[in-house]
Amino acid sequence: MVQAWAALAAGQPLERFEYDPGPLGPEEVEVTVETCGICHSDVSVVRNDWGISTYPVVPGHEVIGRVAAMGPQAKGLTVGQRVGIGWSAESCMHCPQCLAGDGNLCAENVATIVGHYGGFADSVRAQWQWVIPVPEALEARDAGPLLCGGTTVFAPFHEYDISPTHHVGVVGIGGLGHLALKFAKAWGCEVTAFTSTDSKADEARSFGADHVVNSRDRDTLRGLARTLDLLLVTVNVTLDWPSMIGMLAPRGRMHMVGAVIKPMPVIATDLIAGQRSISGSPTAGPLVISKMLDFSARHAIAPQTEHFPMDQVNDALEHLKAGNARYRIVLDA
Amino acid sequence: MVQAWAALAAGQPLERFEYDPGPLGPEEVEVTVETCGICHSDVSVVRNDWGISTYPVVPGHEVIGRVAAMGPQAKGLTVGQRVGIGWSAESCMHCPQCLAGDGNLCAENVATIVGHYGGFADSVRAQWQWVIPVPEALEARDAGPLLCGGTTVFAPFHEYDISPTHHVGVVGIGGLGHLALKFAKAWGCEVTAFTSTDSKADEARSFGADHVVNSRDRDTLRGLARTLDLLLVTVNVTLDWPSMIGMLAPRGRMHMVGAVIKPMPVIATDLIAGQRSISGSPTAGPLVISKMLDFSARHAIAPQTEHFPMDQVNDALEHLKAGNARYRIVLDA
Repeated sequence: MVQAWAALAAGQPLERFEYDPGPLGPEEVEVTVETCGICHSDVSVVRNDWGISTYPVVPGHEVIGRVAAMGPQAKGLTVGQRVGIGWSAESCMHCPQCLAGDGNLCAENVATIVGHYGGFADSVRAQWQWVIPVPEALEARDAGPLLCGGTTVFAPFHEYDISPTHHVGVVGIGGLGHLALKFAKAWGCEVTAFTSTDSKADEARSFGADHVVNSRDRDTLRGLARTLDLLLVTVNVTLDWPSMIGMLAPRGRMHMVGAVIKPMPVIATDLIAGQRSISGSPTAGPLVISKMLDFSARHAIAPQTEHFPMDQVNDALEHLKAGNARYRIVLDA
Repeated sequence: MVQAWAALAAGQPLERFEYDPGPLGPEEVEVTVETCGICHSDVSVVRNDWGISTYPVVPGHEVIGRVAAMGPQAKGLTVGQRVGIGWSAESCMHCPQCLAGDGNLCAENVATIVGHYGGFADSVRAQWQWVIPVPEALEARDAGPLLCGGTTVFAPFHEYDISPTHHVGVVGIGGLGHLALKFAKAWGCEVTAFTSTDSKADEARSFGADHVVNSRDRDTLRGLARTLDLLLVTVNVTLDWPSMIGMLAPRGRMHMVGAVIKPMPVIATDLIAGQRSISGSPTAGPLVISKMLDFSARHAIAPQTEHFPMDQVNDALEHLKAGNARYRIVLDA
């Protein structure tokens, strides 16, 4: 039996939940949980913000642990190996997206915490492709948040051929944003942090920002017109979109990883005049996650974390919801 | 003295206009006009729709002609050579965009018909980089519309690594759209034309469309969800944007070349879920224009044109404004 923490209905506090995972599937891997990060999307799924939740919800999709058992068709892993599991737990493996290594874009992609029991537990399962080996050189205790938060902000650098000669902006210095600053710095870019919280400026610099700008200071934003090659938006609130797009250099890209709910009014000529793009992406495929972990190990990139024991998960969730996490919470099993 | 046709004030009919072009600049080339296409943006500049016009406006930026004279620093051309001039007449040549071959994105770019006298004339000038040699194999009589309209819809194929294995949609079968269909077909793609004018369906197929869809038929658009790698929007009217974006395949791109005025409401999660992009672009740099002309010559791509003598330019403009052009008008000098 798996000992887990679950929300039995939308928005409920988590409670102890025991379930029988049944026989291990041929392509499944069982992972003993050591730590599990908390992501804002755990809160969203507990609350059913996106209308896709199935209860009980066992949250947790930033898992670090060790392989406990492998189905007979599970490949590339060994029992006892240290691994991570992120947002995705399964994909079809035969659609064009899966065949291209983009299983995160698979229409049949199964999220670790939607219709599947996640990592706030002593054990969690996933299809072998989505159980990612963790490099020995990476500090495992704090690596969990790399699996979802880190992947999400690393992927645009990988996917859009961002160059170390580029000027990168990061909007929002939170769980995702602080990792984005670290990746951008290690990538060799010129880095500008945009935050509405002036008290985060010094920390933003310590994470790698060359410049820190208040994201509500319209005059400053205007002064940065035509300067940014990549503007990574990690917040989910409405911004001054024309000013944001105006900061993009010719051929620049504003990339959304924050699930902003309200439609963004985009003026076609603002894109046309500078050959600009607006885009978004959801985490990444297994190979990109592996590359991100390897890159993080080589560049000593780790999230700045606060640890809670797993049986204080509800306190940890309240800390996150209050906006007090600095900058990512990890639960210790 | 140059004999031209000009609007002396916003929205006025064109009238005969004679001007002294002064001494030829060191980097300027003088071109004797043989033909000149009419583009919708000629109408926009005559009317000052974009607030950038300076009168008198001499429209015309789809010029085919021959080099009559070259300044001492003009390079790569010979007197008598057949050439074309498109939207751009000049750029600074030393900014990052110019140095990268993207002079169309230069902040100092001078449009042929804004603060500069265009091609509805017996003669027109441009900086040598923007005077593009026309391949011998290209039918010069109809080539004018390639210089602006053709370049505009060719550039996205070149810029975004469109593959012959891609499925391309083209919205709007007009001056730009009918050329986009021809380029997409010659590029080897699967091609779907979207039009609100059912009577254009047969012609759209003759231009290269494998499929023709009514762009207002929401059920059909929904049936095409997740299928298009590139959706090229050549119209400037408001469309059902969620349905349009919904048709994009994972990693798909909606690319705007039509100057839609009303902001498009873009939902971030529609981009995030499928790693989709929205972008736009303005014509292209000199090398891409040359590649487009070469590609057109090799694939026998020519606009479908209607010819008017230049002294019937006002009749031609009325024909265009009435939406009757099939599909591009060329003035013969």
